[in-house]
Amino acid sequence: MPSYAAPIRDMQFVLDEVLEVSKSDVPGYGVLEPDFTSAILDEAGKIARDVLAPLNAAGDREGCRLENGVVYTPTGFGDAFQAIKDGGWNGLDLPEEYGGQNLPYIMGTAVGEIFVSANMAFNMYQGLTHGAISAILAHGTEAQKATYLPKMVALDWTGTMNLTEPHCGTDLGLLRTKAEPQADGSYRITGQKIFISAGDHDLAENVIHLVLAKAPGGGEGTKGISLFIVPKFMVNADGTLGARNAVSVGKIEEKMGIHGNATCVMNYDGATGYLLGELHKGMRNMFTMMNEARLGVGLQGYAVAVAAYQNALAYAKDRLQGRAVTGAENPSGPADPLIVHPDIRRNLMDQKSFLEGARAFTFWGASLIDRAHRAGDAAAEGMVSLLTPVIKGFLTDKGFETAVNAQQVYGGHGYIEEQGMSQFARDARITMIYEGANGVQALDLVGRKLAQDGGKHVMAFFEMVKGFLKENEGEERLKTEFLDPLKAASKDLQAAGMFFMQNGMKNPNAALAGSYDFMHLFGLTCLGLMWARMAKAALAALDSGSSDAAFYETKLATGRYYMARHLPMTATHLARIQSGADLVMALPPEAF
Amino acid sequence: MPSYAAPIRDMQFVLDEVLEVSKSDVPGYGVLEPDFTSAILDEAGKIARDVLAPLNAAGDREGCRLENGVVYTPTGFGDAFQAIKDGGWNGLDLPEEYGGQNLPYIMGTAVGEIFVSANMAFNMYQGLTHGAISAILAHGTEAQKATYLPKMVALDWTGTMNLTEPHCGTDLGLLRTKAEPQADGSYRITGQKIFISAGDHDLAENVIHLVLAKAPGGGEGTKGISLFIVPKFMVNADGTLGARNAVSVGKIEEKMGIHGNATCVMNYDGATGYLLGELHKGMRNMFTMMNEARLGVGLQGYAVAVAAYQNALAYAKDRLQGRAVTGAENPSGPADPLIVHPDIRRNLMDQKSFLEGARAFTFWGASLIDRAHRAGDAAAEGMVSLLTPVIKGFLTDKGFETAVNAQQVYGGHGYIEEQGMSQFARDARITMIYEGANGVQALDLVGRKLAQDGGKHVMAFFEMVKGFLKENEGEERLKTEFLDPLKAASKDLQAAGMFFMQNGMKNPNAALAGSYDFMHLFGLTCLGLMWARMAKAALAALDSGSSDAAFYETKLATGRYYMARHLPMTATHLARIQSGADLVMALPPEAF
Repeated sequence: MPSYAAPIRDMQFVLDEVLEVSKSDVPGYGVLEPDFTSAILDEAGKIARDVLAPLNAAGDREGCRLENGVVYTPTGFGDAFQAIKDGGWNGLDLPEEYGGQNLPYIMGTAVGEIFVSANMAFNMYQGLTHGAISAILAHGTEAQKATYLPKMVALDWTGTMNLTEPHCGTDLGLLRTKAEPQADGSYRITGQKIFISAGDHDLAENVIHLVLAKAPGGGEGTKGISLFIVPKFMVNADGTLGARNAVSVGKIEEKMGIHGNATCVMNYDGATGYLLGELHKGMRNMFTMMNEARLGVGLQGYAVAVAAYQNALAYAKDRLQGRAVTGAENPSGPADPLIVHPDIRRNLMDQKSFLEGARAFTFWGASLIDRAHRAGDAAAEGMVSLLTPVIKGFLTDKGFETAVNAQQVYGGHGYIEEQGMSQFARDARITMIYEGANGVQALDLVGRKLAQDGGKHVMAFFEMVKGFLKENEGEERLKTEFLDPLKAASKDLQAAGMFFMQNGMKNPNAALAGSYDFMHLFGLTCLGLMWARMAKAALAALDSGSSDAAFYETKLATGRYYMARHLPMTATHLARIQSGADLVMALPPEAF
Repeated sequence: MPSYAAPIRDMQFVLDEVLEVSKSDVPGYGVLEPDFTSAILDEAGKIARDVLAPLNAAGDREGCRLENGVVYTPTGFGDAFQAIKDGGWNGLDLPEEYGGQNLPYIMGTAVGEIFVSANMAFNMYQGLTHGAISAILAHGTEAQKATYLPKMVALDWTGTMNLTEPHCGTDLGLLRTKAEPQADGSYRITGQKIFISAGDHDLAENVIHLVLAKAPGGGEGTKGISLFIVPKFMVNADGTLGARNAVSVGKIEEKMGIHGNATCVMNYDGATGYLLGELHKGMRNMFTMMNEARLGVGLQGYAVAVAAYQNALAYAKDRLQGRAVTGAENPSGPADPLIVHPDIRRNLMDQKSFLEGARAFTFWGASLIDRAHRAGDAAAEGMVSLLTPVIKGFLTDKGFETAVNAQQVYGGHGYIEEQGMSQFARDARITMIYEGANGVQALDLVGRKLAQDGGKHVMAFFEMVKGFLKENEGEERLKTEFLDPLKAASKDLQAAGMFFMQNGMKNPNAALAGSYDFMHLFGLTCLGLMWARMAKAALAALDSGSSDAAFYETKLATGRYYMARHLPMTATHLARIQSGADLVMALPPEAF
């Protein structure tokens, strides 16, 4: 049975020493003192270890079930949900006026990593609620906020997002769910939605569905789409629950993973809905929360792999198999532990160096969201908007790969469900798909974000890298191992951008054929930047005579590994990009 | 529900035009006429399409069950097994004297690909039997051969391989299963074996277990190991079945995939066993079949992905979502098919170009096994011995990746078990693990095979590449797109080998830390060579005025894609290798 311990020291390093949230105000908040943040993370870590992680494998095995229209979550999820409610965890970074604690988003992100690592399927019930709350906060009327938010922040009610229909996921212009205006200002919603995470369950009194549907008069395609609030139970004027609305669960999907979360087919049969935000602006309204939602999925991608890595590491230290080629290291035992073998070490270092870089990258993204949302910082908004598809696409691809690599350490035992390593791989797999499949992220990055605001944000990214290199050029301890590889990666990224500029104008396929490689090239460069910043922070701590020298030396060694063994991949991505679109598009469909 | 059609035209291209089995004698057999081989592949394709593929998803859902000591396979497996028996498929490449048809191993491999693509879990029942037959053929006494082989070739009885124990998989020196000699020359076998594929089932009258166990007097570690035949039911002198032997199924493992195959814990409680081959030479005897067994797993890795690819392709042509960026291609429909999008095309081309290269590589390996086994060709034996870990490790890693990429084409639908794409990924996953986890393949390659016979075989490989380049240097149509990239890849491979030679002597870790990258670098180079050879064959066909020009043009386009977009990865592997062992081994275990 896998276990999980929150990597709080690593998290604090990113918060305090790399992003320095304790040295200057977090926009709209103030200084986040290390004692305060570590107390929060400690508490989250305890719940994760004692309450959530023990339910992870059991929830996977048991799954959810639909009986007589009622969805039941796995045994123990109810009690765990109560613990999350009691701790006020869902409101951590939500406004005080609705019962939240108003902490910065970056703290919600750090706690989120811990909860996802411990039990991703379980955490989705609150995660989806959080997303729905953000939408109502951004677009709801005061009355809507007053009706829904206190209950949702407290997790008395949960939320969902209803976009996908059987015939359309990415291309929402095709959607068929109808919204017919009623005399009382409400709408009758009719249609079928699929793949609705946390669509129904037995954890809360009510479920507030946010539903995309077409109301008359909006025109063709995505222009006609509006966003509606559709409660499972109608809400009376006094806030009590009324009759059941005409929305029901058609079935629970059998999936590859995240079995503990009920992925529902939702049938709307003339259900009562209320317009959220402006009519026919549903797409725009839904996408307001896009950066947060996608950053949250990127976080899931690596957070599941953190748990997988911890267990692979424990197994590698424990399992005796073979002898070190350089001489027995456990001579009194029947064999040496797996971790003595260079290829096992290579695998573990691949995992560790990616995961720590991924955390820094995600937390950085979260800090940009804080600056954008709480301080109206347009540059930060632009930067996180650019980085969001990279965080989502790159971190989930590599997160899944990392979970698979962790499973590999177990050999045959990794394939047996009893050991729990298969679940990490199966759970992580969905993160590459939902909230915009990774190919769609690549398209968003290259087709939209690169050129956004005249290319200002990607230029700002390159300036930032250049600034960092310049600022540290005298630091000989960083030069060969960190600055030079970062410079090379950044140069490859710029060359790829240049290739798109030169070729994409006359042939958009020339850019799009390289979009997936570009997303990875960008991700590698971002993690290279993160590692260079972490190395700098580690050197500063060592120079100041930290009593925890081993911790910082480990950071430096892990960073050196990433720079030397992950970053060279940027050259391959560039070569693929520069090979252009002709090879990709050469075959007519019938020739495949 | 996924479907499958055997890619017979592609297979014939490799057999007839690349490996040219129809132009000269296959050792120990004669010419394999295209009409004859295509008739066999056609027939296999029909069974695959009509009998095996329809059971694949159902077998995954239903799985196997153990009731009162009896193992039941999924509904329909019995009838399908009878069809395989009736067709004599198991004996295709086995000796006539035991009921086989004596066709070359390469034909067994081609048919094997078809059956594995259609239903990997099902095909393992006969696949394991085939492996056990090879062991008895190689090491059995005449009496043993007469007793077991006719029944096993006919699939009246099936076979298993029993190596792994709970505490040891790779490190068999630790195994504890005991073999006590009895007065009548038999042995009493006692111990527990785990992960025994096809360990028991309801498909055949008897199961013949080949079991590694320690008999007294052999010394410590692997030296004391012998190989035993342990039948489920004792075999009487007249060939009829007698009493049940003291071997039983402890449980069936719950696995990530291949649910249709019963992976059993086998308990030997003083079971009667018969020595197979020399006493205390069990490891050597077991490893006689290693090349075939590992080539078979490499084949599984890509063959499952062939089926995944076919379904992803069909979905990409069928599913309407979005519009081509260069203008609508299905203007009368609500949207264009997925295949118009460059990133979908990139994904499909990645799959297609890998899979066709993998097939050529595997068939080439099979042809080397034919030369080695049927003509005693030591050079071929050395070459296939060198290539085996590459075929196993590289093709299964990339096969799994390909199955995952195929699943990705389906978006959210790929994550739903109903669609069947998850199964391909889950089934393919085991191929990276069993028959020696891929890290062990890398160790075998770098730690053993490179230096085998004084490095003669790797030298022969480089000579072969050089010879091919030289022989075709005047062919301008191959030069830039095929020969130059192959040359560059081969140069990277040589540089990596040189690095190991220069550094591995004083520090074996320097070689082993790069072993996994070397395995992939070698695999890429082999597929580059295969594509160069296929391109040459395609040009020859076009020059001769083939009426099937579109087929050959497609081959050339697919090959160009592989060379330009997969091969650049060799540089990254080389960079990782040349970064050495220090970064990999920098952290003491407690610092992780």
